[in-house]
Amino acid sequence: MTSSTTVVLTYLAQHHERHLDELFEFLRIPSISALTEHRADVARCAEHVAHQLHAIGLTRAEALPTDGHPVVYGEWTGALGQPTALIYGHYDVQPVDPLDLWESPPFQPTIRDGQVYARGATDDKGQVFMHLKALEAHLRTTGRLPINVKLLIEGEEEIGSANLDAFIAAHRDQLAADVAVISDTAMFARGVPSICYGLRGLAYLQLDVVGPASDLHSGSFGGALANPIEDLCKILAALKDENRRITIPGFYDDVRPLAEAERVELGLLPFDEEAFRRKVGVPALAGEAGYTTLERLWARPTLEINGMWGGFTGEGSKTVLPARASAKVSCRLVPDQDPERIADLLTEHVQRLCPPTISLTVTRMHGGKPCLTPLDHPAVQAAARAIEVGFGKRPVFTREGGTIPVVATLAEQLGLPSVLMGIGLRDENTHAPNEHLDLENLRNGMRSAAQLWFELAR
Amino acid sequence: MTSSTTVVLTYLAQHHERHLDELFEFLRIPSISALTEHRADVARCAEHVAHQLHAIGLTRAEALPTDGHPVVYGEWTGALGQPTALIYGHYDVQPVDPLDLWESPPFQPTIRDGQVYARGATDDKGQVFMHLKALEAHLRTTGRLPINVKLLIEGEEEIGSANLDAFIAAHRDQLAADVAVISDTAMFARGVPSICYGLRGLAYLQLDVVGPASDLHSGSFGGALANPIEDLCKILAALKDENRRITIPGFYDDVRPLAEAERVELGLLPFDEEAFRRKVGVPALAGEAGYTTLERLWARPTLEINGMWGGFTGEGSKTVLPARASAKVSCRLVPDQDPERIADLLTEHVQRLCPPTISLTVTRMHGGKPCLTPLDHPAVQAAARAIEVGFGKRPVFTREGGTIPVVATLAEQLGLPSVLMGIGLRDENTHAPNEHLDLENLRNGMRSAAQLWFELAR
Repeated sequence: MTSSTTVVLTYLAQHHERHLDELFEFLRIPSISALTEHRADVARCAEHVAHQLHAIGLTRAEALPTDGHPVVYGEWTGALGQPTALIYGHYDVQPVDPLDLWESPPFQPTIRDGQVYARGATDDKGQVFMHLKALEAHLRTTGRLPINVKLLIEGEEEIGSANLDAFIAAHRDQLAADVAVISDTAMFARGVPSICYGLRGLAYLQLDVVGPASDLHSGSFGGALANPIEDLCKILAALKDENRRITIPGFYDDVRPLAEAERVELGLLPFDEEAFRRKVGVPALAGEAGYTTLERLWARPTLEINGMWGGFTGEGSKTVLPARASAKVSCRLVPDQDPERIADLLTEHVQRLCPPTISLTVTRMHGGKPCLTPLDHPAVQAAARAIEVGFGKRPVFTREGGTIPVVATLAEQLGLPSVLMGIGLRDENTHAPNEHLDLENLRNGMRSAAQLWFELAR
Repeated sequence: MTSSTTVVLTYLAQHHERHLDELFEFLRIPSISALTEHRADVARCAEHVAHQLHAIGLTRAEALPTDGHPVVYGEWTGALGQPTALIYGHYDVQPVDPLDLWESPPFQPTIRDGQVYARGATDDKGQVFMHLKALEAHLRTTGRLPINVKLLIEGEEEIGSANLDAFIAAHRDQLAADVAVISDTAMFARGVPSICYGLRGLAYLQLDVVGPASDLHSGSFGGALANPIEDLCKILAALKDENRRITIPGFYDDVRPLAEAERVELGLLPFDEEAFRRKVGVPALAGEAGYTTLERLWARPTLEINGMWGGFTGEGSKTVLPARASAKVSCRLVPDQDPERIADLLTEHVQRLCPPTISLTVTRMHGGKPCLTPLDHPAVQAAARAIEVGFGKRPVFTREGGTIPVVATLAEQLGLPSVLMGIGLRDENTHAPNEHLDLENLRNGMRSAAQLWFELAR
């Protein structure tokens, strides 16, 4: 450990009690972005964050208006010749109902058993705060940061970030950086600090099939014409083979194969398949032949039927031969699949499968690119070293099966790779009553975040 | 033509104008069984029918209470040693909205172009009236009927005949007969008098599959477990082969094959396949290989998906991996298939097809037996001869793809074969504005109904 590291980490240790008080202050503001009656609270919270950024010594710190809730922007750019990191987070929180299930009031932070309970504790105020205090530790002890830092702390993450893309597009130069650092995810498991380096993308489509001009009596007409639900079932059933491989021609063409080293790494993760099966509550797990569950979740593309409907769906037994049927179908994508190309291939394939007895319309709903920061990317390696300092153990490298839209936006708009170093835990009741954050993870996270700027400067 | 026939038919011709006046009186009563505000009208209509039965000379005629609207019962049983026919019909009618689409008020019968326009003209008051006047013609001219006749005219047909089964069960001895005569269906086409001798039965089931314990995020979980909608699609898609034959083992075991003579008869019907295709509005007709459209509709069993649902079915694109999916599936049955046995076979088969990744529950909704009165049954042949007298041409023999519940009830409760001699036309706006009845068909129908009693007595 270098002497600068020692100085900074010592500062964090010495000021931890005050930092907790300040975290509580942040958590007390009911910045629920979804509820109109909390609009002023959200604005107050934005001002609070901007004030904090200013107080810790950033050279620029302001709450900027959008068409919705403000975005807080901050920067310190005094490290000439050094790279720039853009820290993304959000200060808004989820609603709190059902309130009666909270053991302590959601906006009165309370410590029990080494956890701080409050709405926003883990998602995402605690993790934003971790970065703020890590920056403070540098600026108060050495008067500077090892690299340049910009912060983008939004107030609409919990309601879909409707104004974020436009904000980023409008501030492209101001936000220019070399790497994005995001702490809004969970660690792989308790005691297992993690870096998430990949997210899946998405291509979402709706299929609508039409047979007869109107619903018909299944007695008077049944047998003489095709049933649109049956035809749609046949199309959907044909989209995977007996190995649960997707049958769309060309679907796997652009899939970057898992490197052997990566498979080994994933195989070493402490993943309990049987516990996972029990948790989701299925009789048996199932997926693409030749891959483990984690590989299927993180590194292989999927095709899911998200919804389907047609004909009579009420109680009882209406004898209808339906005129139409519909399904929502989406693919999770992995590098280097392109959502547009996959949507094209899926559309062509279902049209090919469509029998002459029905007409089929395919509508594209939305898409998102998969993201992957290579494991050997300097920023990923820097984060790994920082976490080793902060937590006292090497992190594991994970991916995530879902999509975090801001990661794709930052990649597309600003060309930034993202490093996701979250310190939440999956059982910390995000979006639910009794949300909490582990204080040891917070402490180690602050140390890791502080160390990260040293590591990125090397 | 015998002299008795001449006397009776001459009576009908001579009294036609008065009969029309009396039909109009019947049609003026707004006996809408579905609407509470017409409850008194329905009761009045029952009394009107009972009074008519008495007036034409039946020995018993009364409106009998049920838990809903009254049933009108009448009888003349003075033909010792002769068979007994039970005439079924209904005096209640459908609602009339949208009222503004009627060219003349629904309860002010109006003649235009040889049609009488009124609610109930064809369904079913006109056809009930036809039988009443045929009976009158016998009783007024000869003082007797060639056979014994009972009438069961209900007031709840348009609302599902909820109290009819119980009424029949409670009056089994009183209703005992040798054959049922029902005039509540349409002729095959204009100018083509018809006898319907077969109806399909029904076995209706619901399939519910469950995968994970709750809906899951399709990003975080997609790929590692089976999708219940997909699994259900695969089960449903496997229920028919490439020839659209149902794959359930044993499904066809009890199907009575079409006799060659019957196929020839069906093939001679003036059926325009292309007009039918245009009417239902499908790009192409489709059905079980090896059978014509009419054979598929009338004489072959089917399996239809009546409804299906699962996952997200709203607007937009929710990325859910659904916990459950359901489908309503029904089979139309032909003699000698048994609804219970088919439900058993279907249940066993889908359970066999069910993969270990989901659990499947099958619920029986309802069933009904197929009905077939053999073409060479004396009553069918008698009706054919009667129609030849009434219409001046031989009738065609048809079946119907749907189920008429009362036919199954009369078969099961009273052991009666049914002869369906309807004089409606398919384009007479049953259940719609501007319902009407062709007066020539009414006249010929009365003649046929009158002749039927001679023919059945032979």
